[in-house]
Amino acid sequence: MKLIAATVLAAAAAASVLITSSPDSGRAEVGDASPIFGVHIPTGYRQWELIAPAQEAEPLNELRAVLGNAVAIKAYRDQILPFPDGTILAKLAWKHIQSPDFEPASIPGAATTVQIMVKDSKKYPATGGWGFGRFIDGKPADEAQHKTCFACHEARLKARDYVFTRYAR
Amino acid sequence: MKLIAATVLAAAAAASVLITSSPDSGRAEVGDASPIFGVHIPTGYRQWELIAPAQEAEPLNELRAVLGNAVAIKAYRDQILPFPDGTILAKLAWKHIQSPDFEPASIPGAATTVQIMVKDSKKYPATGGWGFGRFIDGKPADEAQHKTCFACHEARLKARDYVFTRYAR
Repeated sequence: MKLIAATVLAAAAAASVLITSSPDSGRAEVGDASPIFGVHIPTGYRQWELIAPAQEAEPLNELRAVLGNAVAIKAYRDQILPFPDGTILAKLAWKHIQSPDFEPASIPGAATTVQIMVKDSKKYPATGGWGFGRFIDGKPADEAQHKTCFACHEARLKARDYVFTRYAR
Repeated sequence: MKLIAATVLAAAAAASVLITSSPDSGRAEVGDASPIFGVHIPTGYRQWELIAPAQEAEPLNELRAVLGNAVAIKAYRDQILPFPDGTILAKLAWKHIQSPDFEPASIPGAATTVQIMVKDSKKYPATGGWGFGRFIDGKPADEAQHKTCFACHEARLKARDYVFTRYAR
C-alpha cells in the first residue's frame, strides 16, 4: 500500500510541476502577470498542500494560509535551504470575521489578496532568486507595491532564504 | 495539459481514498482510537487539501486549519450535502503566537490538538453519521470529552450536516 501511495503521489507531484511550469497552462484563467517580476497566479494553487495558517493584525485584519507546490513542500520537509528553483509559495488572505456559528471562533470572510513567490535564481538574481506577485481579485497590484516586496523580506529573513512562513507541524 | 492534469489528479484522489480506507494503513503510526467512536488519526492527513484556516479566541487562543480528504474536498467543491460516507475532516490546531519576524503577524506555535470527523452513516447513526476523534500529542482525549462533540455540532449545524467549516474561496 505504501509503495502504491508513494508512486501515485510522486506522479501527482511531477504532474504538479508540469502543470505549473507549462507556459500555456491556465494563463487565460489567471489574468495578467505582476509588474517588475512577470509572475502569474499558478493554475491549481488552491489544491496545494498547506505550509501554515497565519493571522495578520489590524489594519489588515486577515486570516491567511500559505500553500506550496510539490517542490516547496519537499524542501520544507527535507529542510532544504535555499529553496530550489521551481519552488512556488502561495499566500491566500481573507478578511477575518467572527463565525456566525460559534462565538469564540473567527473564520475567513471575503478574499483580499493572493500573493505568490516563485524561485528562479537565474531570472531573479537581484531579489534573492525570488519573483513576487501580489494579486487582488486576480489582478496584479501596481509597480509601486511590487517594489516593496523584496526590501521587507531581505531585511528580515536572509537566514531563511527570504521566506517568512515556517512549516506548521 | 488540462487532460493530463485532470487524469493524474483523479488518480491521486483515488489513491488517497485507497490510502485512507486501507484497514492496515498507518495504524501503527497513529496510536489508539478515540473512545465511543473508535476513530483513528488517518495516515497522510497533513498532506490533504486545505478547506479553511480559523482562529479560536481565548482561553484556547489557537490558530487552526481544517483539511479534508479527497471525498471531503469533492463534496465541498460540488456543494454536496449531506457529506458522503468516506468523508474525513481533520482540524489541526496550534497555539497562536506572535511572529518573531514581523510584529503584526501571528503564527502557529506548539501543536495542541488534531480533531477528526469521519462520515459513516451506518456506523454512526446516533450522531448524524459522524464519528469524532480528539487527539492530543497523538493520543485520544477521554470519553467525557468525546461525549461533548456531537451535542455542540447538533445544536448549531444541523442545516450543514453538522460541519462548522465552510470552504474558503
